Amino acid sequence: MTPEPADLRYMRRALELAARVRGLTSPNPMVGAVVVSDGRVVGEGYHRHAGAPHAEIEALAAAGAAARGATLYVTLEPCNHHGRTPPCAPAVAASGVARVVCAIADPNPFVAGGGAPTLRAAGLEVVTGVLAAEAAALNRVFLTAVGERRPHVLLKAAATLDGKIADLHGASRWITGEAARRHAHRLRSEVDAIVVGVGTALRDDPALTVRLDAPWPREPLRVVLDVAARTPATARLITAGTAARALIAIGEGAPAPRVAALREAGATVVSCPAADGRVDPAAALRALFERDVRAVLLEGGGEVHASFLAAGLVDRVAIFLAPVLLGGRAAPSVLAGEGLPLKSAARLGPLAVTRVGDDLLVEADVLRLTGEGA
Amino acid sequence: MTPEPADLRYMRRALELAARVRGLTSPNPMVGAVVVSDGRVVGEGYHRHAGAPHAEIEALAAAGAAARGATLYVTLEPCNHHGRTPPCAPAVAASGVARVVCAIADPNPFVAGGGAPTLRAAGLEVVTGVLAAEAAALNRVFLTAVGERRPHVLLKAAATLDGKIADLHGASRWITGEAARRHAHRLRSEVDAIVVGVGTALRDDPALTVRLDAPWPREPLRVVLDVAARTPATARLITAGTAARALIAIGEGAPAPRVAALREAGATVVSCPAADGRVDPAAALRALFERDVRAVLLEGGGEVHASFLAAGLVDRVAIFLAPVLLGGRAAPSVLAGEGLPLKSAARLGPLAVTRVGDDLLVEADVLRLTGEGA
Repeated sequence: MTPEPADLRYMRRALELAARVRGLTSPNPMVGAVVVSDGRVVGEGYHRHAGAPHAEIEALAAAGAAARGATLYVTLEPCNHHGRTPPCAPAVAASGVARVVCAIADPNPFVAGGGAPTLRAAGLEVVTGVLAAEAAALNRVFLTAVGERRPHVLLKAAATLDGKIADLHGASRWITGEAARRHAHRLRSEVDAIVVGVGTALRDDPALTVRLDAPWPREPLRVVLDVAARTPATARLITAGTAARALIAIGEGAPAPRVAALREAGATVVSCPAADGRVDPAAALRALFERDVRAVLLEGGGEVHASFLAAGLVDRVAIFLAPVLLGGRAAPSVLAGEGLPLKSAARLGPLAVTRVGDDLLVEADVLRLTGEGA
Repeated sequence: MTPEPADLRYMRRALELAARVRGLTSPNPMVGAVVVSDGRVVGEGYHRHAGAPHAEIEALAAAGAAARGATLYVTLEPCNHHGRTPPCAPAVAASGVARVVCAIADPNPFVAGGGAPTLRAAGLEVVTGVLAAEAAALNRVFLTAVGERRPHVLLKAAATLDGKIADLHGASRWITGEAARRHAHRLRSEVDAIVVGVGTALRDDPALTVRLDAPWPREPLRVVLDVAARTPATARLITAGTAARALIAIGEGAPAPRVAALREAGATVVSCPAADGRVDPAAALRALFERDVRAVLLEGGGEVHASFLAAGLVDRVAIFLAPVLLGGRAAPSVLAGEGLPLKSAARLGPLAVTRVGDDLLVEADVLRLTGEGA
C-alpha cells in the first residue's frame, strides 16, 4: 500500500518534531505527533524527556476539542501500558480522534503489544508503516535496546583516508579538522555513555566530556574498559566532570590498591568478567544497560573496536576520513585485533556520506545475518 | 576578470570534446576546440591521438571560410613549435579568426612558449584562463609530465571502510563490488602503464590488462617492480597480452638465469638502481618516461604505495571504499612502509566522492608544498 502524500507530509513533520530532542529522551525513544483536522494542523507535540508526557498526549492537549474526528500522526504506536505515565491508547481513544497513523509498531516484546488493538476496539482506524524506515533510523538506539536488551553501540573513529587513526608514534591530534571534532561532540551529546579502552585513556588522557557551544543538560557516562585498573586517579576522564559519572569497568582480579584509589577519586568502579585478558565487551554493555545506558559511543582504540566487532556488538560506524595519508605498517588502524577472514567480513548497509569541513563522515549500520537488526 | 557566460559555455564544450578521447592521446594532452561566429558554432575539433592534427586545426578545417572574424576556443594555448605536426599558431592566424580564448597557457618549458605572442603579433585578441582549473584537471597527467619530466602517478586501491586492502590471510578477491571493478578497468584504460610490486604479482597473479565491454585500442604496459626477478615466466601479466608489453623492472643484481627466463618469455626486462632493497621508484618512473609513459596507475601493494609516497611520487589517489569491515592488526592497509609522522603527513586536496555501486570512490590530489603540482 502506497501511503497518501498527505500522510507522508504529516508523518515527516512528526519525525521532525521527534528529532528536536535528540539525545535528551533516553532511556525513552524520540517520538513526535501531529493532529490534523480538515487538512489543518491543530496540534503538535513531542516527548521531551523520560517522565514527561508522551508525544501524542502533548499533541492532543494542544488540539483540544479540535481533535474530534481528526487524524493523529505519531512516529511510534501509542503505548498501552503504565510506565512513568499512564497508557496513551485509552487517552487517544477518548480524545475523539477518528484515525491514527503510526510510523512503526511498538517493538517492545516485554509489554503486551502496543495500543493498536485498543484503538481499533474503540472504533478508530489505525494505519502503521508510514515512513517506517525513517522512524526506525531515528530510533535505532531504542529499537536495539528493546530488541536486544543491551545498549546500541556506535563505533566512532577519526582516520586518514588510508585508514590510520594515529601515526607510527601514536600521535593522533589532530587528524581531522575542527568541524569534524565539533561534530564528534554532537555525537557524544546523543549518547548515554562514551567508552574507550585503557590504552586510549593512558595515551591520550581524553576528557570524554560533551563540549558544544552551549552547555549540554546531560552528562553521559565516561567509561574506560580497564581490566587491571591502570587508569590513574588523576585521569581527565575522572576529573573533567562529575567524578561519579566516570565509570571504570575493571576485571575481577584488578589490584585492590588501584581500585581503592579510583573509588577514592570518586569514580564509579564496576567489576566485570574478563575475556582474552580484557574486559568482556558484552559484560561491560550489560553493566551499562543496568544503569539505563541505551546509546554507547565507542571511541577507540583499534583493539577495543575489534573486540566489540568480533563479539557482534557494533551496530553502526561513524568514520571521519581526513584528506591525509599517513601509512605505516605499525601505525594503528580503525580496527586492530586478529581480523576477520574476507569471507566472513562484517558487511555494512548503505554508506551515508556527509562533508564535515574538509573531512568526510561515512556512516553505516553493521548488517546482521540473523536477529532483528535496525 | 570574470569570463563572459558565452566564453564559459563554449569552453565547456571544448573541454567535453577534449575528454572524448580520454586515454588515447598520450603522450600528448587531450585538447578540444570550438569555432564560434555570430553566436553560432561553425566548427569543432579535438586531438584524436599523437600524430593526428591538433584540435584547433580540426576545428578550423570544419569551419572553413566561416572562421573569418570568428572566435576560436581551445583548451590549451595553440603551439608554436614543430612536433609531429606543423605549429598551430601561424595556421590559426592565417584562418582569419579574430579572437582566441584559451583555458590554459602552454606549460611546456622546453619549447619557446606557446603561440599567444605569434597570434597577438598577427593582430588577434588572445584571452587565457577561462575554465583553467577544469582544463588543468583534465590534463593533470600532461601537466605533471611536462612540469616534472616524469609520469603522473595515480595510486589506486580497493579497501574496506577500515582501510584494509586484504584480510589477515592476504585474501583480497573481492573487497569491492562488480561496478567498482569495472570502473577500475576504466582507470587502467586511461593510463600508459599499470604498475605493481612483485609481492602483489606473486600473491595475486594479476593480468593487469584493460578489460572493458568493448576491446580497447591501446595496450598499457604491464609493469612489475621486481628487484630480484622473482616474477615467473608464466605470470599472467606476461601471458595475458603482448609479452613485450610486460615490463619487468629488475634490480642490477638480479640472478641472470631468472632474467634470461623472463626475456625468453618475451617480456621487456629493464634494469634499474635499487634503493632499500627494492627497485627505486624514481628510477622506474624514469625508465617508463623514456618509453613515452605519461600516466601510471599504481595498483599495490601497500609497500610499493608507501615507497612511492615517501619519494614524493604519488600525484593523486583513487581509493575505492567498500561497505565492509575486516580489521586485523597484521592485515595490509592501503599504505604500509615506515609511515609518516602526523606533522609531516601527506596532505590531500578536496576529496571527490563518487558512488560506484555499493562502494565509494574517493579521489584527491596529493598536495605539494613546493614545485608545480596540478
